[in-house]
Amino acid sequence: MNFASDNTGPVHPKVMAALMDANQGYALPYGADDLTAQAVAMVRDVFEAPAAAVHLVSLGTAANALILATLSDPWQTIFCHRHAHIHEDECNAPEFYAAGTKLTLVEGADAKMTPDSLRKALEAEETRGVHGPQRGPVSITQATERGTIYTLDEIRALADVAHAFGCPVHMDGARFANACVALGCTAADMTWKVGVDAVTFGGTKNGLMAVEAAVFFDPKHSWEFELRRKRGAHLFSKHRFLAAQMVATLQDDLWRDMATAANDRCGELARGLRQMPDVAFLHDPQANIIFARMPRAMHQKLHRAGAQYYVMDGDVDTGPADEQLLARLVCDWSMTQEAVDAFLSVARS
Amino acid sequence: MNFASDNTGPVHPKVMAALMDANQGYALPYGADDLTAQAVAMVRDVFEAPAAAVHLVSLGTAANALILATLSDPWQTIFCHRHAHIHEDECNAPEFYAAGTKLTLVEGADAKMTPDSLRKALEAEETRGVHGPQRGPVSITQATERGTIYTLDEIRALADVAHAFGCPVHMDGARFANACVALGCTAADMTWKVGVDAVTFGGTKNGLMAVEAAVFFDPKHSWEFELRRKRGAHLFSKHRFLAAQMVATLQDDLWRDMATAANDRCGELARGLRQMPDVAFLHDPQANIIFARMPRAMHQKLHRAGAQYYVMDGDVDTGPADEQLLARLVCDWSMTQEAVDAFLSVARS
Amino acid sequence: MNFASDNTGPVHPKVMAALMDANQGYALPYGADDLTAQAVAMVRDVFEAPAAAVHLVSLGTAANALILATLSDPWQTIFCHRHAHIHEDECNAPEFYAAGTKLTLVEGADAKMTPDSLRKALEAEETRGVHGPQRGPVSITQATERGTIYTLDEIRALADVAHAFGCPVHMDGARFANACVALGCTAADMTWKVGVDAVTFGGTKNGLMAVEAAVFFDPKHSWEFELRRKRGAHLFSKHRFLAAQMVATLQDDLWRDMATAANDRCGELARGLRQMPDVAFLHDPQANIIFARMPRAMHQKLHRAGAQYYVMDGDVDTGPADEQLLARLVCDWSMTQEAVDAFLSVARS
Amino acid sequence: MNFASDNTGPVHPKVMAALMDANQGYALPYGADDLTAQAVAMVRDVFEAPAAAVHLVSLGTAANALILATLSDPWQTIFCHRHAHIHEDECNAPEFYAAGTKLTLVEGADAKMTPDSLRKALEAEETRGVHGPQRGPVSITQATERGTIYTLDEIRALADVAHAFGCPVHMDGARFANACVALGCTAADMTWKVGVDAVTFGGTKNGLMAVEAAVFFDPKHSWEFELRRKRGAHLFSKHRFLAAQMVATLQDDLWRDMATAANDRCGELARGLRQMPDVAFLHDPQANIIFARMPRAMHQKLHRAGAQYYVMDGDVDTGPADEQLLARLVCDWSMTQEAVDAFLSVARS
Repeated sequence: MNFASDNTGPVHPKVMAALMDANQGYALPYGADDLTAQAVAMVRDVFEAPAAAVHLVSLGTAANALILATLSDPWQTIFCHRHAHIHEDECNAPEFYAAGTKLTLVEGADAKMTPDSLRKALEAEETRGVHGPQRGPVSITQATERGTIYTLDEIRALADVAHAFGCPVHMDGARFANACVALGCTAADMTWKVGVDAVTFGGTKNGLMAVEAAVFFDPKHSWEFELRRKRGAHLFSKHRFLAAQMVATLQDDLWRDMATAANDRCGELARGLRQMPDVAFLHDPQANIIFARMPRAMHQKLHRAGAQYYVMDGDVDTGPADEQLLARLVCDWSMTQEAVDAFLSVARS
Repeated sequence: MNFASDNTGPVHPKVMAALMDANQGYALPYGADDLTAQAVAMVRDVFEAPAAAVHLVSLGTAANALILATLSDPWQTIFCHRHAHIHEDECNAPEFYAAGTKLTLVEGADAKMTPDSLRKALEAEETRGVHGPQRGPVSITQATERGTIYTLDEIRALADVAHAFGCPVHMDGARFANACVALGCTAADMTWKVGVDAVTFGGTKNGLMAVEAAVFFDPKHSWEFELRRKRGAHLFSKHRFLAAQMVATLQDDLWRDMATAANDRCGELARGLRQMPDVAFLHDPQANIIFARMPRAMHQKLHRAGAQYYVMDGDVDTGPADEQLLARLVCDWSMTQEAVDAFLSVARS
Repeated sequence: MNFASDNTGPVHPKVMAALMDANQGYALPYGADDLTAQAVAMVRDVFEAPAAAVHLVSLGTAANALILATLSDPWQTIFCHRHAHIHEDECNAPEFYAAGTKLTLVEGADAKMTPDSLRKALEAEETRGVHGPQRGPVSITQATERGTIYTLDEIRALADVAHAFGCPVHMDGARFANACVALGCTAADMTWKVGVDAVTFGGTKNGLMAVEAAVFFDPKHSWEFELRRKRGAHLFSKHRFLAAQMVATLQDDLWRDMATAANDRCGELARGLRQMPDVAFLHDPQANIIFARMPRAMHQKLHRAGAQYYVMDGDVDTGPADEQLLARLVCDWSMTQEAVDAFLSVARS
Repeated sequence: MNFASDNTGPVHPKVMAALMDANQGYALPYGADDLTAQAVAMVRDVFEAPAAAVHLVSLGTAANALILATLSDPWQTIFCHRHAHIHEDECNAPEFYAAGTKLTLVEGADAKMTPDSLRKALEAEETRGVHGPQRGPVSITQATERGTIYTLDEIRALADVAHAFGCPVHMDGARFANACVALGCTAADMTWKVGVDAVTFGGTKNGLMAVEAAVFFDPKHSWEFELRRKRGAHLFSKHRFLAAQMVATLQDDLWRDMATAANDRCGELARGLRQMPDVAFLHDPQANIIFARMPRAMHQKLHRAGAQYYVMDGDVDTGPADEQLLARLVCDWSMTQEAVDAFLSVARS
């Protein structure tokens, strides 16, 4: 019953097997190996973008920060939702890599910017000539940190607003797969076809050990990104082991299968919780994350039964039994129906 | 009738005379001259802080950014009001000098943080361990960009909150003098006596050509500041000309006299405008700046009569005559009663 | 016959097995897992430094840059040999992480600084007050990029010079193991016992997939390093997989066994080459790297036979047969005696 | 007898008068005033470059650092002589502004790079793909910090080498005027006509209070420079006072007259010293600076007589009377023949 995060579970066995397979003999370092070429080709394929610049790094924060630095200037401000990972959970990595940019926080329900809130934020900048920051890239988190998902139309609408102001669009896809299968669309559908210019194609939260692809649909950014990656100390020497993971996840749509499993378990969990009158959802769970308020007594039972998850706003042990405390429940690819059932059964009891 | 800004008017003749006087013979460069020693001593005197670290730079943005960089780490966030100059009007200079810090924007009416809004902002950070930014300095703008003033009690309350979280307190005093004379207090009263740790003691907006003193009440920051100033290319070689201005403004309380004149003219202007039923103040003007809404027709008359000031939110020339447009009116030391009277008389007509 | 680099060979099977073992069930992320605690304890053990701050990152450049940033200020200069990896092969990563420090290049034969050359370099800085850079950390590469090794006395002498100027000492130990077994000393002998303050304890070039430990003997640097690591996007979420590798290499001295194998093969290769009159060594090979000049004809035979290694200064295919071209030959843990023999036999033929 | 520096003497009276004249009434801030437009036009005129981007800052280090940052990327290295001001005397300002570039030090007698030493330095970089820094701008100091001057042919030869590698050329002209009048050429002759792409046109060391013009012959850099200047806290609000100085120095060739006076006095001083057998010149003085070794006894006499200048390598007061100590002697525009004669007469005595 581990619902703590999608980075606490095991790596998929096929990915581990791919790492073992990759460990044969010698391979050129720093991405000059055959597996890396294969991984790049497969990422281009899955994005239907044969000319895209594709580079691997081990961590999502690295991909985000390096992409945003490549797309911005230090005197600009990057637009993102108030609850974006790049703002809340990266300890100023974007500001570090982008050499002192600002982040302009955009409002919106369910951790989602709206075309209107984005336009207002964009209009409010660059009103003071050289004195204020200039407009920089817009970063969309898909799926959001709160487990919600932008529809394709919503993404296109945001991208249209961004482009109208001359701003490139980045998608932080740490949970790209969860969003993609939830929408039932392709990787291309969710990105360049609706105006996304660069994407962090996440693997680590979806069954890999530690790999993300940074994808630019305009390949002109490729060499700058490579230099930034090296200078940021993110160029792996034994690069084949990054590549092997990426190849494994793209083979036979494993990435979609894993995300589907995670989303499905999360859906079952949500359906079960919804039937309990004392559970209140903060957002409609659309991917693999639930934010829900549950009474302390329920938390206590679950904790005693060994369920693991974060309680965001209070102490489970002490306080009135009926006080509502906010739980974050995350399902990864390895979540079992048994665990979901067990969780629900304890909660119900 | 120039109400555009307090950086458009002339330098006070006594300051110009001091520059001429300073231009005699040779002087050691880089602040090793006698005039600089005198300026430092006089700043310490006026702040009743005999051990304070005092360094001169030419621009307020430089003083702010260098002080904040000295007081912060790059993985921190600096707390300031949404309408702080360091956020809106310095093109990411604080982020640049502090190597990629964040700025956390604090709410509050009249461009003033409240102890409560500041506490909420502080509490909302450092809740995610190493993942989110750490709490950094709190920066108070006094007088604010909207012409309002924190009372001594308000400053102390903010400083108490900041210190309770271990955060040092900076005062952006680009209009320090205007606030100080409005409060009828001393420089010490408005700073270290109410918990301010470092201050940008502004001169440029108060009749000098281009000088601000960066003052740290704890002298331990002195050497780091000097290195940051040099590395930031802000160490003047012919330093006596910065010092001469600072000495001149502190001599015989010229700085207070100039600020009093500016505030008084602004008060007269405000009193006059208040009697006009179609003028609405955004804030109660407490220093030398007025934000007021006036009908387009009034703006047109004033512009035709040669009045200079910024209209913040619309086109004076085109639109309904009775539409209210926001004016920013600033008085500097050189503003005359005649100009104020003339402005009011046109507005009234 | 792959002598290209110690990052082209396979990961040791025991390390791969450890990764498989680590992939069981759930583990807390970001280093809060049990394996990380074990890895930290084992690193402290091997360094006989029970209080040391120990943090894992995936790449040597990351460890170097983060340590140097932690030990320096941006207005300083870092002292290293002209052939240090941090100068030649990190694309300004130290300057990036340390926010614009300088690197002062120190001379010395065999890619080794001498106490005298270091002292001269230190004395030449900080002679201009605030105008020049201030003295920062000294970084020693052990083993050097040219395959030579500092003796313990040499390290102590360098550290004494550095400390006499108040400068902390960093050891870039990407090939720490190779040096340590060559000297027949312990990890403690080669570091804090001879004055080293912080060390990059390399694993990637010694049979791991991608792990280095950043070790500070003074734990006061720990929290700052953690914040810098997170902000640099180097904090792994699935941290157990870094820890598993570190545990595996420290178990039963695997790290020493692997380095011994690499050094031994390199020694055999060197002995064989030394007997060939037309081979000239640039340096006396002391660890697992050889720099030697060999005639083009010999390179051609070796390349035809499938030998892989870098030729540093010319075109193997075109030019006089007897022209000497510089080869870099590297042995890793997996190098076989058969490969060495085959190489020598081709070279000899 | 003040030969300490060209930043210790007085500002030229005409420049002071221009400041007084500029202090009439109101003027738009931040460079939108008429005087600034006039200054820009005059700089373009003197450089015969009607489209050049011209921006004023107060300090030479600011102009250098901002220009180099504009011309470079953070993963590059800037090429300059080992004795360049940007390396020795700016406390890492170029590295700060350029976000962590390296400086590659080029050798050459008399503080001058040679085409050959520059080519060698350029060839030695970018040999390691993404691993080493990339080639960035070449910065030429004219006149050099040692008082020597590049001929026009030498500048063109350096620029040709730089451009052959795709590197732009910056001229640090803190003593531009001294070099220009020594060569008897125009500002255009010494810059774009011989391949210089951007120049720091120095005024501060040539009789101004504190003004330098940053000039780019390709105006495409203009807006980026403006943003960098603002973000670096170098945009003066009361900009007319920078402009007034620049206008004054360009009016009627005052800048050339002042530099001629400085150079002439320096020439007379050099001629006098050359006749003394115990004075040895380090370089042939070509502008307004002399580096010469003189016996301690001579220094003692001069110091007792009140002469002021820097002794670079020893203690004047203590040691053998005939030991040679290195003096740096600088003449500015205000140096009198009387002072030169007095100095020589004491030295001779």
